[in-house]
Amino acid sequence: MPKITLTRLDAASPDFAARLDRLLAWNESDDLSVHQRVLEIIAEVRARGDRALIDYTTRFDRRALSDASELELDKAQLQAAFDTVSEAQAKALQTAASRIRAYAEHQKMASWRYTEADGTVLGQKITPLDRVGLYVPGGKAAYPSSVLMNAIPAKVAGVPELIMVVPAPQGELNRLVLAAAHIAGVDRVFTIGGAQAVAALAYGTETVPPVAKIVGPGNIYVATAKKLVFGQVGIDMIAGPSEILVICDGKTDPDWIAMDLFSQAEHDENAQAILISDDGAFLDAVEQSIDKLLPEMERAEIIAASLNGRGALIKVESLLQAAGVANRIAPEHLELSVDDPEALSEHIRHAGAIFLGRHTAEALGDYCAGPNHVLPTSGTARFSSSLGVYDFQKRTSLINCSPQGSSELGKTASILARGESLTAHARSAEYRIKAG
Amino acid sequence: MPKITLTRLDAASPDFAARLDRLLAWNESDDLSVHQRVLEIIAEVRARGDRALIDYTTRFDRRALSDASELELDKAQLQAAFDTVSEAQAKALQTAASRIRAYAEHQKMASWRYTEADGTVLGQKITPLDRVGLYVPGGKAAYPSSVLMNAIPAKVAGVPELIMVVPAPQGELNRLVLAAAHIAGVDRVFTIGGAQAVAALAYGTETVPPVAKIVGPGNIYVATAKKLVFGQVGIDMIAGPSEILVICDGKTDPDWIAMDLFSQAEHDENAQAILISDDGAFLDAVEQSIDKLLPEMERAEIIAASLNGRGALIKVESLLQAAGVANRIAPEHLELSVDDPEALSEHIRHAGAIFLGRHTAEALGDYCAGPNHVLPTSGTARFSSSLGVYDFQKRTSLINCSPQGSSELGKTASILARGESLTAHARSAEYRIKAG
Repeated sequence: MPKITLTRLDAASPDFAARLDRLLAWNESDDLSVHQRVLEIIAEVRARGDRALIDYTTRFDRRALSDASELELDKAQLQAAFDTVSEAQAKALQTAASRIRAYAEHQKMASWRYTEADGTVLGQKITPLDRVGLYVPGGKAAYPSSVLMNAIPAKVAGVPELIMVVPAPQGELNRLVLAAAHIAGVDRVFTIGGAQAVAALAYGTETVPPVAKIVGPGNIYVATAKKLVFGQVGIDMIAGPSEILVICDGKTDPDWIAMDLFSQAEHDENAQAILISDDGAFLDAVEQSIDKLLPEMERAEIIAASLNGRGALIKVESLLQAAGVANRIAPEHLELSVDDPEALSEHIRHAGAIFLGRHTAEALGDYCAGPNHVLPTSGTARFSSSLGVYDFQKRTSLINCSPQGSSELGKTASILARGESLTAHARSAEYRIKAG
Repeated sequence: MPKITLTRLDAASPDFAARLDRLLAWNESDDLSVHQRVLEIIAEVRARGDRALIDYTTRFDRRALSDASELELDKAQLQAAFDTVSEAQAKALQTAASRIRAYAEHQKMASWRYTEADGTVLGQKITPLDRVGLYVPGGKAAYPSSVLMNAIPAKVAGVPELIMVVPAPQGELNRLVLAAAHIAGVDRVFTIGGAQAVAALAYGTETVPPVAKIVGPGNIYVATAKKLVFGQVGIDMIAGPSEILVICDGKTDPDWIAMDLFSQAEHDENAQAILISDDGAFLDAVEQSIDKLLPEMERAEIIAASLNGRGALIKVESLLQAAGVANRIAPEHLELSVDDPEALSEHIRHAGAIFLGRHTAEALGDYCAGPNHVLPTSGTARFSSSLGVYDFQKRTSLINCSPQGSSELGKTASILARGESLTAHARSAEYRIKAG
């Protein structure tokens, strides 16, 4: 059984800030050979369309394909997959979907406009994206929850056509993933993956229609392809490893906290799980729970690698100081396992999602509480937010000047345009100034 | 005097789609030597801080500097600049600022929460970014309107500290730019520019504090630096050349339309101005207006280069067909110079901003109508939107489960987590299920 030795930090120590910075440091390596390979794949798909898709899919996914039409699943196949999952799983997926949908409905932006005294109307028109692509990894890392979290906000936004791509290595597909697609209302599914799937969604082929935006997680090839097609289409963020920060006052069962840390650490070796407490004895107790529970875990090796490499226990003087450390970290997930989590949350400025109270395990949010589990990682919660309905809507400004309004605005615009030496701007505005 | 020969397209012609695609094609050249140079500058600023800033600023802006403190302007200098502008200019800036502010106020997102029957609370907490950097180009392309458009939404969002950087080549600064910064409530100003200014804002130096997001236009070095620091900080979009699409039913004064096209074309040789009409004779009339008005324009050379290279007159059968072409183009600016612009706008799905009616010149929106003039270019209005208050706010999801709520959610989460073979997730959820 692997052994865990957690990094211990004390916020009172003079080198705390430097040690915390080192703990948090995460540099996505920019592999130039991957970059080059992905550029080639994109160029091939743009030049040869379906033929390139068939070639790559035959080679990388070891499938026998003769025609691009074989790359599409029809809706009956999604329904059939849904029909094969257990009743408990079907009900759990539906419960999760309806809760994710209910929360997303609160995020919907509506168009608005207002009329000024002279009759000029200003406003903002909201429209959904025309067509969205959803990347879903194949094989073992296929997560039905991720299908729900990415697809449902797009559908709530009113996106008329949602295209899912998912590789089928050697023809194999995950039934739960297809069942989730069925429940989420995915419109079309293509069994393609990798950079070639991203390229097909961005530029279109004879079979795959081009989309306006591509969302969803993927490996380094998929992430690189998304970066490279950005501009041609929109993309969601490129996620780093997942992280949890737990702040606990020492009064939660240490087994619960240990398992909450494990739930993050089991994702992968680079995941980061950190616990902060003002109670040093509690940090010791959680460490004992970790040692006790680790042997029971299926993914003990991954958990140990994650906790040894990037985990930490941090001692602070007070919960208020813990909030300060949290703002410095800007964690993807923040659990406030304390008596008055609402009061403490008032001091949190940066976090992707806050899980308030001892009963609110992050895992509940990962699957079914309602808010999205696609959240900003690696401190980017300082400036970005979770995936949501607004990622699938866009805003068009509306300006409708009355003759009186344009006459008044024309005078102001003329002065400012001439101040910038843009005289065509000035004259265009001046045409609209009423004589006298 | 330069001569203009505008491209003519007819939507009824069989090669229309292909010709339109060629007209719209715009490839930002990815200059690897620029990339390399910018990487070096960023590395230098990260390693040597203020010393690097002083070195680059001395060299590139030809300034005699001995101490980094000389790089900051104090607020009294902004006030002094404002005091020197003419009364008409001061009033125009203030009118524009108050209209931009009034519109932005409508965009402010508010926190919300709702409570479920079992006492579980879900919500979304809105916080402003801590500190924002605003890049402002120096020299001739210094636009005070751009300062207002970038700074005011940040202030309306509640950003406590807004840092402006603007190069002062040979010590020279644009008074109107400083006056606009004064009016917009910019908190600190550093007279630095180029990739070194972007690097300083992203990573901080002894003198320049690090920000969470960098916005504002700049040359290829600035744009490349923004791309390269993305992830460390947020950035706004990287803008392509500016564009206007005018749809006219033939009943607007052709001089007005010609000048509206000029107002876009005068920006730079790569700007794009396109007119669509269902009235062929009107297209001829606008062409005559163009020939008549061009000799009067200060920037005739730039206008001619832009219109010859990227401009077009497009004949359509109907205004409805024009709307279809507009959706294909997804223009940054769209003027609907027709009898019933509201009805026509219902058919527009993709545009950065729509200017409705013959009186609503784009120039009014560029300066003072209220909506932001930072808009998605190069067809990216298919998936993105204007700069706004939401770019300076972020959303944190809130989940506070009641004991009853977490017990129920725990059952669902457990089933889904086990379906994904994530057993630490499952067990973390199961701890919260109440016995019996």
